[in-house]
Amino acid sequence: MKTVAAAEGIEETTLCSRIADGSAVIMQRETTAIGIGRGLRTKINVNIGTSTGKINMNEELRKARIAEEFGADTISDLSMGGEINAIRDAILACTTLPITTVPVYQTVVEKGMRMMTADDILATMRMQARQGISSFVVHCVSPAMLAEFRKKKRILGVVSKGGSITSAFMLLNDCGNPFIEHFDEVLAICREHDIVLSLGNTARSGCINDPRDRAQVEELRQNAALGHLAHDAGVQVIIEGAGGHIRLDRISPYIRHYKRKANFPLFVAGPLPTDIAAGFDHIAGCVGASVASAAGADYLCYITPAEHLGLPSPEAVKEGLVAFRIAAHIGDTVKYKDGSDQQDRTVAHLRAELDREGQIRCALDPARARQLSDGEKECTMCGEFCAIRIMREF
Amino acid sequence: MKTVAAAEGIEETTLCSRIADGSAVIMQRETTAIGIGRGLRTKINVNIGTSTGKINMNEELRKARIAEEFGADTISDLSMGGEINAIRDAILACTTLPITTVPVYQTVVEKGMRMMTADDILATMRMQARQGISSFVVHCVSPAMLAEFRKKKRILGVVSKGGSITSAFMLLNDCGNPFIEHFDEVLAICREHDIVLSLGNTARSGCINDPRDRAQVEELRQNAALGHLAHDAGVQVIIEGAGGHIRLDRISPYIRHYKRKANFPLFVAGPLPTDIAAGFDHIAGCVGASVASAAGADYLCYITPAEHLGLPSPEAVKEGLVAFRIAAHIGDTVKYKDGSDQQDRTVAHLRAELDREGQIRCALDPARARQLSDGEKECTMCGEFCAIRIMREF
Repeated sequence: MKTVAAAEGIEETTLCSRIADGSAVIMQRETTAIGIGRGLRTKINVNIGTSTGKINMNEELRKARIAEEFGADTISDLSMGGEINAIRDAILACTTLPITTVPVYQTVVEKGMRMMTADDILATMRMQARQGISSFVVHCVSPAMLAEFRKKKRILGVVSKGGSITSAFMLLNDCGNPFIEHFDEVLAICREHDIVLSLGNTARSGCINDPRDRAQVEELRQNAALGHLAHDAGVQVIIEGAGGHIRLDRISPYIRHYKRKANFPLFVAGPLPTDIAAGFDHIAGCVGASVASAAGADYLCYITPAEHLGLPSPEAVKEGLVAFRIAAHIGDTVKYKDGSDQQDRTVAHLRAELDREGQIRCALDPARARQLSDGEKECTMCGEFCAIRIMREF
Repeated sequence: MKTVAAAEGIEETTLCSRIADGSAVIMQRETTAIGIGRGLRTKINVNIGTSTGKINMNEELRKARIAEEFGADTISDLSMGGEINAIRDAILACTTLPITTVPVYQTVVEKGMRMMTADDILATMRMQARQGISSFVVHCVSPAMLAEFRKKKRILGVVSKGGSITSAFMLLNDCGNPFIEHFDEVLAICREHDIVLSLGNTARSGCINDPRDRAQVEELRQNAALGHLAHDAGVQVIIEGAGGHIRLDRISPYIRHYKRKANFPLFVAGPLPTDIAAGFDHIAGCVGASVASAAGADYLCYITPAEHLGLPSPEAVKEGLVAFRIAAHIGDTVKYKDGSDQQDRTVAHLRAELDREGQIRCALDPARARQLSDGEKECTMCGEFCAIRIMREF
C-alpha cells in the first residue's frame, strides 16, 4: 500500500479507501506492487506465451525481459504450447512483474476440449496459484450470452480465445458456466493466494461493423454483479470490457457507460478503431487506447504489429508495448490534466534549449532515437534553418 | 472535376458547388487531380526534400516513389540543400503526385537571410510555378503576431520553419509581411498557373503545455480574411491550422472552431497529443490526426518516426505515411459513417472466413504483413485454439 501510494504520488488513506470501495486494486508479487484503478496512472499489460503453433521458450523469456525493460506494468503468460509449467516458472524467474494467466488455456491443452471438467479447471487454478500467479482471467459467459451468439447476427462472432473455449465447453457438455457455478471455490482460491480476479470480455466485437449488442450489455451486467460478490468476499476485482474493435466515436461513450455501470477498474484490450491496419495494429490500437484511457479506462492490454497475423516476435512485443505506453500517457494527460504532463514539460524545455542529447536520453527507446538522429550532433531535419535557433536571435 | 467526383463517389454538381463556395479544392498536375475538402476522403501529404544538414538526391527520389506507392495524395518538396531546382525537377519526373513547395525556403537558401528581398521571394514563386508546382505554402505572420511571439510567454516559441524564416525577415528588415504586402502579385502567380494557395500555420504550438494563445487566434482570423480575398480573386485556398502539439481533449474543439471560422479546407500537421514520443512520433501523430480528421480536418500532413530527431530515411517516410493513412481512414469512418468503412467490412469478412491470404493481400503493406505472419499457412497466434475456428462448430 505504501509502495503504491508513493509511486502514484497520492495519499495512502486515499488509496486505502479506493481499494476498500473496489475502485482500485493492487496486483502484487513478492517485491512488486502495481496499483490499478481510480486516480492511478493508466497501466499496461503485455501478453506473452507460446501457442500450439509456435513454441520457443527463449523467445518468450526475451519478451518477458523486454516487457520489464520497456515499462510494462504486468505480463500475461498465455502459453498453450510446450511444457507450460516449465515455461511459466522460467518467466516468473526472469521478471519481477506480476503475472496473469487464463486458467482455461492450460486446462484445455492438458485435458482436451471434450475431456476437461470444471474440476480440472479448478485444479489448474490451484496449481497456478501455488506457482505464484498474481491474477486470473475467467470468462463468465452465461447461457443468455450463448443464445445471443448463436443467433449469428455479427460478422465476427466470438473473438475471445478464453471466451470461445469456455463457450465450447458449455455447449459440448450442455452445462452452465464452470466459473459461475463454482464461483465460491474460485473466490476461495483467489482469497487464499491474494489473487486479483479479472472478469473477462468474451463479447467484445471483432470488427467495427459489429456494434454493441445484447451479449455485451448482458456481459457487463453479469460481470458487475459477480464483481460485487467477489468484492464482498474480500477478493479484488477487475472488469474487462469495451475492448476489441470499436469505431472511434463510440469508444468514449462505451468507456463512460462501463464506468457508470461498474465501479471496478476497467481493463481494455485495444480497442482497435479500424479493421484495416494488419501489420500496424499497434498504431491503430494506440489511437483507440489513447481515447479509451482519456475516457476512463484504467488498464490497457497492448496490441502488437503481429495481431491478426501470428505470434509476435520479441521486436513486435517491444513495438506494441511502446505504442501502448504512449497511449497510457496521452490518456493520463487528459484524465489527470496538470501534473501528469511533467515528462512532456521536461521534453519541451530540452527542445527549447536545443539539448539534443537530453532529448535522446529521455526517449522511450533511446537506442532507436539515437539511430533516427543519424548519429549527427546537429538535427539534420532543418539543418541551419532550425526555427528555434532562428527565433532565438530576436 | 469528373476524375475527382468519380474517385470520391459524389455527384459532379455537388463537387462543383463546393469548389465554388471554397469548401473544397482540386490540386492538379498533368494527369492527376486530388480533391481536398468538404465531403471528400481525408487526404495525406508527405514531406520530403534535402536539408542543409543532409543532401542525398537518390534518397529523396526513393521517398517520392515510396510516397506514391504507399498511397500519399500529395508531396511537399521542402528541399533546402544541394541543387534545389535539379532535385525538384527529378522529383517531378519520378512521381505523378501534385507537388507543394514553401517558396521562402529556396529563396533564403539562395539569397541569404539578410540579403533576400520580397522581390526575390516573388521571383522564386514564379520560377517554381513554371517548374510545375501545384501548391504554395506562404506564412502570413502579421506584426500583431510577431508582437505576441516576442512576449515569450510560450515554452517553445515559433516551431514553424517557414514561419520563423518569414518572421526573421520581417524583424531584420523592420518591414511588413512580404506575402501580405504583395498579396495581389501572389494571387496573380497562383491564378496564372492554377496553383492552390495554402495559408501556413506559423503560430502552432510546439508542446502540449503551450495552449492556444492570441497569436493563434489572430493567425486564424487573418488567414480566413486572406482566404476570402484569394477566393474572390479566383484562387483556390487551403488554411493550415490546429497542428503542432495539442493535448488530446483539445484537438476536437480546436478543429471545430477552425471549421466554424473558416469555410476552406483545413490542413493539419499532426497534431501530436504528447511531447514524449520522439522516435515514435508517427504513432503519437496518428492518434492526434485520427481525432482531428474525425472532427473535420480535411488534409493531414504526416509525421515520421524521425520527427524531432533528424531528416527521415525512406523507411521512416513509409512508416509515417502508413500511420497517417490509418489516421485518415479512422477519421473518415467517423466523418462519413456508413460507406467509408467498406474496407473494414471486407477485412472482417475475410477474417470470418479465415482467409489468411486474402487478409495479407489487402494489408496496407502486404510484404510487412507476410513477414509478421511468420510465413506460416496457419496463424501462429492461437494455433489450433482459434476462437473463430472453435465457434464455427456450433
